[in-house]
Amino acid sequence: MSATAPLAVRRRSLQIALDVRTVPEALAALESTADDVDVIEVGTILCLSAGMEAVRCLRAAYPLHTILADVRIAEAGSLIANLAFDAGADWVSVVSGAAPATVPAVAQVAAARGKEVQVELSDGWDWDLVSRCREVGIAQFIVHRSRDAEASGNLAWSAADLDAIAELHRRGGRVSVTGGLKPEEIRAFSEIPAEIFIAGRGIYGAEDPAAAVHTYRTAIDSLPAVDR
Amino acid sequence: MSATAPLAVRRRSLQIALDVRTVPEALAALESTADDVDVIEVGTILCLSAGMEAVRCLRAAYPLHTILADVRIAEAGSLIANLAFDAGADWVSVVSGAAPATVPAVAQVAAARGKEVQVELSDGWDWDLVSRCREVGIAQFIVHRSRDAEASGNLAWSAADLDAIAELHRRGGRVSVTGGLKPEEIRAFSEIPAEIFIAGRGIYGAEDPAAAVHTYRTAIDSLPAVDR
Repeated sequence: MSATAPLAVRRRSLQIALDVRTVPEALAALESTADDVDVIEVGTILCLSAGMEAVRCLRAAYPLHTILADVRIAEAGSLIANLAFDAGADWVSVVSGAAPATVPAVAQVAAARGKEVQVELSDGWDWDLVSRCREVGIAQFIVHRSRDAEASGNLAWSAADLDAIAELHRRGGRVSVTGGLKPEEIRAFSEIPAEIFIAGRGIYGAEDPAAAVHTYRTAIDSLPAVDR
Repeated sequence: MSATAPLAVRRRSLQIALDVRTVPEALAALESTADDVDVIEVGTILCLSAGMEAVRCLRAAYPLHTILADVRIAEAGSLIANLAFDAGADWVSVVSGAAPATVPAVAQVAAARGKEVQVELSDGWDWDLVSRCREVGIAQFIVHRSRDAEASGNLAWSAADLDAIAELHRRGGRVSVTGGLKPEEIRAFSEIPAEIFIAGRGIYGAEDPAAAVHTYRTAIDSLPAVDR
């Protein structure tokens, strides 16, 4: 964000999804890429495989980055959220099929600790969930590109996905987008208020991860900021 | 099971839920209790806190017990199931709000590896889920005592809970029951086809865990076997 940017707008962000099984693999993936990344996502598999030790290691290695523990909370929300926050996470994720009492429970823990919650909008999510989240102060929503579109290699996002992003933003949400996102697709979000772009193997699986992450970064920084 | 018991019936089981945060606490909880236990449940918090190392440690310490990794799968089913099975788990858990494609994905991995899946029937579950599970060969279902009943200290299970257990059994399911279960309640399951009784702090939180687990064991063994 430039020094003269108005406070009501902010730069869009890049989140790296670490879909690996071990802490060494995670550290290796970040070694040449972290400078271009805003949010480090400790993937579900890594959380389960290595436990919260993975979050503690990444927090120690990257004290200034935002860290998401992708624990995909479905139940036992306050316990799991506290576990992740204790380990150093800034954000935790909740699945859209979470038990009704879980959403406010996680929101309460996060608010009390100055942390945030990302809700994954998976197949079958509805606007009632979004309303329940907004009522308890949850602002972050993850929109997945429809798997059919992803599987077909169709670069375009569906009109339904894009409308959902706009509506989430109108409702005060902060939207992340994910699903095989390629750098050349990012310019299509110029007028679409997605604020966080998630990529994983597209970065650390590239032959030159530093070059790959820089391509994402440049594409994201070329977008106009999102009005709040 | 006595040597003369017909093959169509089997002894009912006791599952110990390790709702602790560390491997040492889990090992301590089992030290004087494991002989009376059939199934060791590596609780969700322990899985997330210590990772699959917790499953590996308990497998090493208890090679003959059945081990459930209570990973509460909601998405990414085959990945998470393989992670748990690789670590030595016999069973994995799936939440009732899991994405529709997740149920067959986990079932397929489990079947291919000779493992099993437990589906947690949480608030809002429906019989369509049960049908979808049975179609892909999932037999195990966990019925939670309604939280209201548990909170009120009411020992009786609701008629709705008991009817659900009977209907799950009629549909070929193998039912586990949980929710603040006390040994003195177990005799009430004489004619109710619950096959696995889950207890946690009621065992290892007792002043004398060995005596506590033995009380559960005796109560369970005094029940008639469940017809299959």
